[in-house]
Amino acid sequence: MVDMSFLSELITDSAAKIVLFVLDGLGGLPNPDTGLTELETADTPNMDNLARNGICGLLDPVAIGITPGSGPGHLALFGYDPIRYEVGRGVFSALGVGIELGPEDMAARVNFCTVENGIITDRRAGRISTEENSRLCTKIGKINVEGMEVEIVPEKEHRAALVLHGSGLSDRVTDTDPQRVGEAPLKCEPLPGAGGEAERTAKIVNEYIGKVAKLLAAEHPANMILTRGLAKHPNLPKMTDLYALKAAGIATYPMYRAVAKLVGMDLIDAGPTIAGEIEALKGAWDKYDFFFLHYKPTDSRGEDGDFDAKVRAIQEADAQMPLLMELKPDVLAITGDHSTPAILKMHSWHPSPVLFHSKWERRDNVETFGETACTGGGLGRFQAVHLMALMLANGMKLEKFGA
Amino acid sequence: MVDMSFLSELITDSAAKIVLFVLDGLGGLPNPDTGLTELETADTPNMDNLARNGICGLLDPVAIGITPGSGPGHLALFGYDPIRYEVGRGVFSALGVGIELGPEDMAARVNFCTVENGIITDRRAGRISTEENSRLCTKIGKINVEGMEVEIVPEKEHRAALVLHGSGLSDRVTDTDPQRVGEAPLKCEPLPGAGGEAERTAKIVNEYIGKVAKLLAAEHPANMILTRGLAKHPNLPKMTDLYALKAAGIATYPMYRAVAKLVGMDLIDAGPTIAGEIEALKGAWDKYDFFFLHYKPTDSRGEDGDFDAKVRAIQEADAQMPLLMELKPDVLAITGDHSTPAILKMHSWHPSPVLFHSKWERRDNVETFGETACTGGGLGRFQAVHLMALMLANGMKLEKFGA
Repeated sequence: MVDMSFLSELITDSAAKIVLFVLDGLGGLPNPDTGLTELETADTPNMDNLARNGICGLLDPVAIGITPGSGPGHLALFGYDPIRYEVGRGVFSALGVGIELGPEDMAARVNFCTVENGIITDRRAGRISTEENSRLCTKIGKINVEGMEVEIVPEKEHRAALVLHGSGLSDRVTDTDPQRVGEAPLKCEPLPGAGGEAERTAKIVNEYIGKVAKLLAAEHPANMILTRGLAKHPNLPKMTDLYALKAAGIATYPMYRAVAKLVGMDLIDAGPTIAGEIEALKGAWDKYDFFFLHYKPTDSRGEDGDFDAKVRAIQEADAQMPLLMELKPDVLAITGDHSTPAILKMHSWHPSPVLFHSKWERRDNVETFGETACTGGGLGRFQAVHLMALMLANGMKLEKFGA
Repeated sequence: MVDMSFLSELITDSAAKIVLFVLDGLGGLPNPDTGLTELETADTPNMDNLARNGICGLLDPVAIGITPGSGPGHLALFGYDPIRYEVGRGVFSALGVGIELGPEDMAARVNFCTVENGIITDRRAGRISTEENSRLCTKIGKINVEGMEVEIVPEKEHRAALVLHGSGLSDRVTDTDPQRVGEAPLKCEPLPGAGGEAERTAKIVNEYIGKVAKLLAAEHPANMILTRGLAKHPNLPKMTDLYALKAAGIATYPMYRAVAKLVGMDLIDAGPTIAGEIEALKGAWDKYDFFFLHYKPTDSRGEDGDFDAKVRAIQEADAQMPLLMELKPDVLAITGDHSTPAILKMHSWHPSPVLFHSKWERRDNVETFGETACTGGGLGRFQAVHLMALMLANGMKLEKFGA
């Protein structure tokens, strides 16, 4: 566990502008035909130029061999050790769709799914449309359990956020999503020894799901829900307080807006494309000194297993770099929150390549931005949680430690 | 935080001689005209030869992105995690000038400064001479407050050490040095919630400074003092105990003698030049098995912002290497306690290049001692606190860990 709390005592003021550009799931694995990863295959003249004039390396989001979820991957980049700051999946879902979580509220991530004869046949109900999702949420939105206000809000496709607005609840309960088809949905159970609040919470969740199942019985394909990651708001310390930064988050997907909000960033609205995001960045430039810019397609195409589409997604991001560099950020870090190799079709444990550009860094011999080149980069390989200190240092926002 | 306390249980005896040669502030940043750092610019045939026959790497003194003071930088090299062992600046000042600190005594670092119409116009009083400093310390040396013995001892130029020999005092008070000109000196205040001892300490400091101000009123340019880093002796565990080493410190500047003494080294007197230091090393060779050799000019010239002078300082150290190698140390580590790039004119967060020479290390492909070359070195990049274990291991002074 890495305790970066001493950073707060070193914070000093500077006018520097820092940009953290996260290409979600950037890192990859080689295409067996060429031996080159997605990033190495992509034609990225702008990032290559930055790499030549900057310093590169590799980041382990959580630890060597650990495959991070998007939450931990981003928290690390913001300087929060993801092992110390565990945030339930439900919290990201709820914050992502704009639900305000009270200190006693509990949130879960929901999948609409298909159940036949009591057995799950599709954990995503054929990825129903967001519109269908909305209709179903309205239909089951009136359900209350034990007089408790229950809120269900659609995310994209088959995903929704469930919030129990109440008190005396506990997150020490199990998921109802077995994470595989061919099994029945699980009952929500209190963890061993978790006590009365967990027992009550499990009872409420099961009663709620029972009522949902009845209301959805005649629907198809989404005739049931699965819950996971039931959790309370973690109340993380804010970046504003920790680093005295005016921080802006620019992200189009709910999950990433949620994680930005969780650490105290202001969310800047942007169009759905990277060009729109950079337009938003420009608009907010004078009002903030730290910018988190999130780009989703690299991860999506990796999860699709579409190597060539991920290559194109990287190229589309690269094409926008000149617009970003027109703003002349004092410090720019380009990296991923984790790797998503197309040949694995999932997040992976491989370190993320990082490209760091600042007037005050040494140069290295890296000529192109790619995983193998980054292996010999001047930054070496380190835990992502340290990146924030490096960005702050290069922005002259950190005093000397000790005499 | 890195806990190296398990090292003590692995210690075993060997006749090996270990030399840690610290070129203060060694690491740098490239000269924009050449792309080469101070170390890369310097002609260092002897260290290059050692690099070819040794193994190189990069050390982070405290953590990535953290700029260390000299105290933390050295403690790390001696195997003490500087985040765990925080030592007040005042302690270094007092020990550096040879004051014995009792367990209840408090020490502060003092600057003579210039105040005009209540506002600080020069935090260093034009860097008065050490002689002028001595005269002023004698003049104010008779001041006592509340019957407490107060000692003020000159360091170099405008710097002095202040010690309150008393009991019932607390270090939970603020500095009076605002660290910038154009402001009035601050009052010493107890930290919020620090309690009665801190209140009493602040009162004593303010009363003392009030009396000093009166006595210095007619002086110029040094007509006031600023205090910082008021602290007690931290009572660090001694290297002698931790590693069963007979350790000698050879350093000409008070600060470095202080940090050596703090970890239990014997101080060896030496002339002011590197040649004199190596002469002293020779003289002490048979009586010790660990030698800390400190070289200051690399840092001083870096802080001056004089790139070429720092290059020359490195070359002067290199020229003495044959004399050092005549002693045939079993283990030799050459590094810095932090970087001091001339273009920044201050300590920085960049990792320190390290050159490690021992019969029992693997070789790498590093051909010259320089930051970029060290990036590809066989030691990789690691926290400086681990260097001590590596030196001990190469000296065959560590047993196997576990069965």
